Amino acid sequence: MPEKSSSNPPVAIDAARLDAMMKAVSAFGGGADGSMNRLTLSRTDGAARDWLGAWFGENGFVQKVDAIGNQFGVLDLAGPNAPVIMVGSHLDSQPNGGRFDGALGVVSACEAVLSVAKRIKDDGRLSACNFVVVNWTNEEGARFQPSLLGSSVFAGAADLDWALARTDGAGVSVAEALREIGYAGTDTVGVPDALIEIHIEGAPVLEREGQRFGAFTRFWGATKYRLAFLGRQAHTGPTPMAERKDALLAAAYLITDLKAMVADHGLDLHTSVGRLEVYPNSPNTVPAEAVLFIELRSGSPEVLAAAEERMLGFVERACAMAEVTHEVRSIDRRRAGGFDEGLIALAADCAAARGEPPRALDTIGGHDAVAMSDVCPAIVLAVRSRDGVIHHPSEYTSPEDQAFGTQVVTDMLYRLASDGMEAIGGKEGGE
Amino acid sequence: MPEKSSSNPPVAIDAARLDAMMKAVSAFGGGADGSMNRLTLSRTDGAARDWLGAWFGENGFVQKVDAIGNQFGVLDLAGPNAPVIMVGSHLDSQPNGGRFDGALGVVSACEAVLSVAKRIKDDGRLSACNFVVVNWTNEEGARFQPSLLGSSVFAGAADLDWALARTDGAGVSVAEALREIGYAGTDTVGVPDALIEIHIEGAPVLEREGQRFGAFTRFWGATKYRLAFLGRQAHTGPTPMAERKDALLAAAYLITDLKAMVADHGLDLHTSVGRLEVYPNSPNTVPAEAVLFIELRSGSPEVLAAAEERMLGFVERACAMAEVTHEVRSIDRRRAGGFDEGLIALAADCAAARGEPPRALDTIGGHDAVAMSDVCPAIVLAVRSRDGVIHHPSEYTSPEDQAFGTQVVTDMLYRLASDGMEAIGGKEGGE
Repeated sequence: MPEKSSSNPPVAIDAARLDAMMKAVSAFGGGADGSMNRLTLSRTDGAARDWLGAWFGENGFVQKVDAIGNQFGVLDLAGPNAPVIMVGSHLDSQPNGGRFDGALGVVSACEAVLSVAKRIKDDGRLSACNFVVVNWTNEEGARFQPSLLGSSVFAGAADLDWALARTDGAGVSVAEALREIGYAGTDTVGVPDALIEIHIEGAPVLEREGQRFGAFTRFWGATKYRLAFLGRQAHTGPTPMAERKDALLAAAYLITDLKAMVADHGLDLHTSVGRLEVYPNSPNTVPAEAVLFIELRSGSPEVLAAAEERMLGFVERACAMAEVTHEVRSIDRRRAGGFDEGLIALAADCAAARGEPPRALDTIGGHDAVAMSDVCPAIVLAVRSRDGVIHHPSEYTSPEDQAFGTQVVTDMLYRLASDGMEAIGGKEGGE
Repeated sequence: MPEKSSSNPPVAIDAARLDAMMKAVSAFGGGADGSMNRLTLSRTDGAARDWLGAWFGENGFVQKVDAIGNQFGVLDLAGPNAPVIMVGSHLDSQPNGGRFDGALGVVSACEAVLSVAKRIKDDGRLSACNFVVVNWTNEEGARFQPSLLGSSVFAGAADLDWALARTDGAGVSVAEALREIGYAGTDTVGVPDALIEIHIEGAPVLEREGQRFGAFTRFWGATKYRLAFLGRQAHTGPTPMAERKDALLAAAYLITDLKAMVADHGLDLHTSVGRLEVYPNSPNTVPAEAVLFIELRSGSPEVLAAAEERMLGFVERACAMAEVTHEVRSIDRRRAGGFDEGLIALAADCAAARGEPPRALDTIGGHDAVAMSDVCPAIVLAVRSRDGVIHHPSEYTSPEDQAFGTQVVTDMLYRLASDGMEAIGGKEGGE
């Protein structure tokens, strides 16, 4: 067994190298205004993946790509029977999104694992575990729904064939898109012994409280509906108002009702319709179909269930008022829950040792670590976002905050490399 | 001067030939379910235009195409100084529209002019006027806005360069689309002495009253806004509800307000939002922009002005409630008015002589004849629509009703060919 790390001097990351990597990855889909357009499995995403794969090769990582296109860089430091710690996030972005959401987590993982590996080598010791950097496919759910697709397939929560058959707005399937960019992989990668993800906060809590670092301890649940109102196509000129069956009008009733409902639940409920598809969407034609992508989110399963029931009542009301019908096209449910306590404690230790005890946060947006938390100890750590902005070109986390977060991850990995699974309260892996 | 037609036996159209032409033109963009997809200046529209041009050539018409792509078939029966009667409609359709809206008017015009020309020849007389069949560009306004683009340019109400610069959703300009299908013409065609259009009713009035034929005597005015709500893109997960600036939510408030306003104006006001563009339109992103294509329509200029003022109040309310701003991107106004009384009287005479005195109707939807009514006597005649349906694959007018309407147009043209402009109370053209 390796000696305890607590007596070792800390590992220092190379902040300039981290910054250079963030700049390099931002070239793939980045605009001059800070925007990022790297939709999952696009050619731009393919180019970013190729860049990451080249980095793996140059730094001694063995690349593996699984059937849903999750991209892994495996660094074997401890032999085949040692525990595996997976670290990473996603390189895909929203359309016109920001450059830190996801990418920072992948780049931080590279820097952290590289720093720990070098230190282990310099120490002349064996690592207690192996490391895998991961870039998950389609975290965002912007091009293909649902989000967290790669991690959900990996965790067994989504069926591979079903996932491969998801299509984008142009009718292109995930399978086709993977083949197009050369990431329809055949490798098998096992479930790790722990998963660590670092991400921008995407909310203003840390900034407002003057803190730079957080550890997500709970994740909100989400209920997502794709729901269509079906009316009747007609000319907006001569068709008498009383005879119209306007699917978009029904959508408008539902959107306003969903917003109004929030007032009854304080801060415990978020509702949104982020995407609306109108058909035929011609200025002088009464809409025949309106497809809403609805999200209900809450940290409370009870609130979530109550909101869903009320929403279905609003749907009935909208149908009656606009004289249309509706179809539920899909429902996607994500449970509310908590992250691994051992990982939370390790993160708290490491961050406190660097002078910044972490703020406990709820994560409301989905993260791949949420999907993974069903199958292994998992955690998401957060660095602060300027003005809390995410999914927008003005999304920003300072190089100093990026480096701090990466340093904490590095310290956590070094503790795991030194102490093995005991570092997070687990049993020792390997011999 | 030719002898009066009133003493002549009537001209009979060839109903089988009319039916065959309707079937032929329906092949361009027609689906098995009765649908029609012949968006203006698409390749399908180009093929239909080529077919019409071939028909012109085979039947002694000289084709002319002007700079906005309006397609004319000129039949000179009376020499260069005689009055010109233009007859026609449009071959373009809505997406997933019906096959009679527009196309019937072009095909009827061909059959009517051909029948009259043959009769004039058989009579061994000169015609008192020349005829031009017309197929206007972009009546529908589905691919390019505004609608009535070709006739508005022809009538001088829209600037040619401005019209050519209109772009579709993919950024293709009218000028590019015209070149693509070979209809960027250079011919000049003069304003006619009268314009006659026949069209399906697109409303259920005739059917309900057991009548088969109508003459539009008034046209409604329309005020069309393209209006954008501008919010702020953010993640639908973590962004607190109170901090969202949701452009789609503002759109929803406005859509419901516009519908509610109608109740205050009985049957005198129609409102609609037929097209809504949401940006970035991603399921888990708060919409940053929502562009509404709003129409207000009324037969009363006062109601129209009052509705517009109230709408602007609703826009302010929506902005305040959703904490967004707005921009008016374009305003298109079409005045309310009446068609030519001489043409109305001639149509009434001819239809009554066939046993079906026409029902006087209001046209609420725009027609090219409305744009043309600013520059010459114009009229739109109507044949009944099953269930009043228009802009939908189930749009239908029976062959018998199509033939009846075409017969009345033919009788009108024969009166004009025989009596010249006196047939509609105007001065005699020609010598």
